[in-house]
Amino acid sequence: MSALEIERVARERLQHAIGYRFRDPAILLRALTHRSYGHDNNERLEFLGDGLLNFTVAAEIFRLRPKAPEGDLSRLRASVVREETLAVAARRMPLSEAMLFGPGELRTGGHKRASSLADGLEALVGGVYLDGGIEPAQALCLKLLAPELASLPEVGSLKDFKTRLQEVLQAQSRPLPEYSVLSEDGPAHRRNFRVRCQLVDEPAATEAEAHSRRIAEQRAASMMLDAITSKERKNA
Amino acid sequence: MSALEIERVARERLQHAIGYRFRDPAILLRALTHRSYGHDNNERLEFLGDGLLNFTVAAEIFRLRPKAPEGDLSRLRASVVREETLAVAARRMPLSEAMLFGPGELRTGGHKRASSLADGLEALVGGVYLDGGIEPAQALCLKLLAPELASLPEVGSLKDFKTRLQEVLQAQSRPLPEYSVLSEDGPAHRRNFRVRCQLVDEPAATEAEAHSRRIAEQRAASMMLDAITSKERKNA
Repeated sequence: MSALEIERVARERLQHAIGYRFRDPAILLRALTHRSYGHDNNERLEFLGDGLLNFTVAAEIFRLRPKAPEGDLSRLRASVVREETLAVAARRMPLSEAMLFGPGELRTGGHKRASSLADGLEALVGGVYLDGGIEPAQALCLKLLAPELASLPEVGSLKDFKTRLQEVLQAQSRPLPEYSVLSEDGPAHRRNFRVRCQLVDEPAATEAEAHSRRIAEQRAASMMLDAITSKERKNA
Repeated sequence: MSALEIERVARERLQHAIGYRFRDPAILLRALTHRSYGHDNNERLEFLGDGLLNFTVAAEIFRLRPKAPEGDLSRLRASVVREETLAVAARRMPLSEAMLFGPGELRTGGHKRASSLADGLEALVGGVYLDGGIEPAQALCLKLLAPELASLPEVGSLKDFKTRLQEVLQAQSRPLPEYSVLSEDGPAHRRNFRVRCQLVDEPAATEAEAHSRRIAEQRAASMMLDAITSKERKNA
């Protein structure tokens, strides 16, 4: 088979696996094109798919957890629609084989990176929406994330920001942050701790204050987590 | 008219104004109930509506800006789906008159606060989705934000994080942040600035580094903006 033929077969297999056939093959092609491959890539479709995934998962969690307060719904959604989970979902599909990467990206293993796969999955959802409208696109979201939606985590387990920050950094093979107490004052029954969370490989730090060192660290970790994930979104 | 009658008329007026009549009046009532009024309030519907608004505006901006790169689409969406803009949209509707607030909230002017109005608008969208499905809910999103979508800002004007942080803080009647240079080193042609952005009314700070003081300040402001807006979401 020629290279083009191999690519065509990979797209056929993917469409078969997701149960959706594109009317416009150009949209599918664009959804599968990583930015390293060329200008007409999947970044805009990824933006579209990200919004649809977030909404569809939000609506599904709203339905599945009829008594959960808003904060829990938010945390549950964030636990499902995040890079690592989307990459796991992408690996269940013959997606990366169908994606187009530039040679440099292939050489450095970019086609196996969680972020590339998660972005590709979002772009695929965005592509289905553009090609076929909201119904097949929402059906695809629910199908792709069915295992995760069927086993939502306990909300309590989602609240530890230091652990989450650690996981995010480890997933990127980055060093763990350093926490330090900048100051500690106030009377014994009402101490006040000022804590700093410092990244090791990047000159970024956050600081927070609380009446316990543990809570101050959690707050600083939460701020850093927000800064990192927001930055990733912007760079994506 | 009795108080209940006044409330009923306000709901009639609102439904007329948005061009949607609820099949299930209990959903409308819940969408209009601020958390200060009672337990069966609009916070869950707000979560649902927030997701739908974000997606619908994303899809509309995708359509309106067929050449814009992903980062610009993100910034444009954030400029439309933010508290101040949603509050402006809410004030174009007879929404606050139809909402139910607790007496303490009314006394302190909570019914006029941008955050209450924005949340109410999101909950209304979530309620229409729950009551009538995605089509009328998306139509409502586009109708509510039609003026903003018809006059999207220039992307360049959205990139200044210090200005945006200032606006967010001012909208909450909070003091402006203080910027300070923590260190400055490196050879003359390649100076390195480490800058701190410190909130005045809250012990939160962010730090960032760059080869110019201006860019370092922008980065620190961007991190703080992320931390503040994320915290608002969690507390909403």
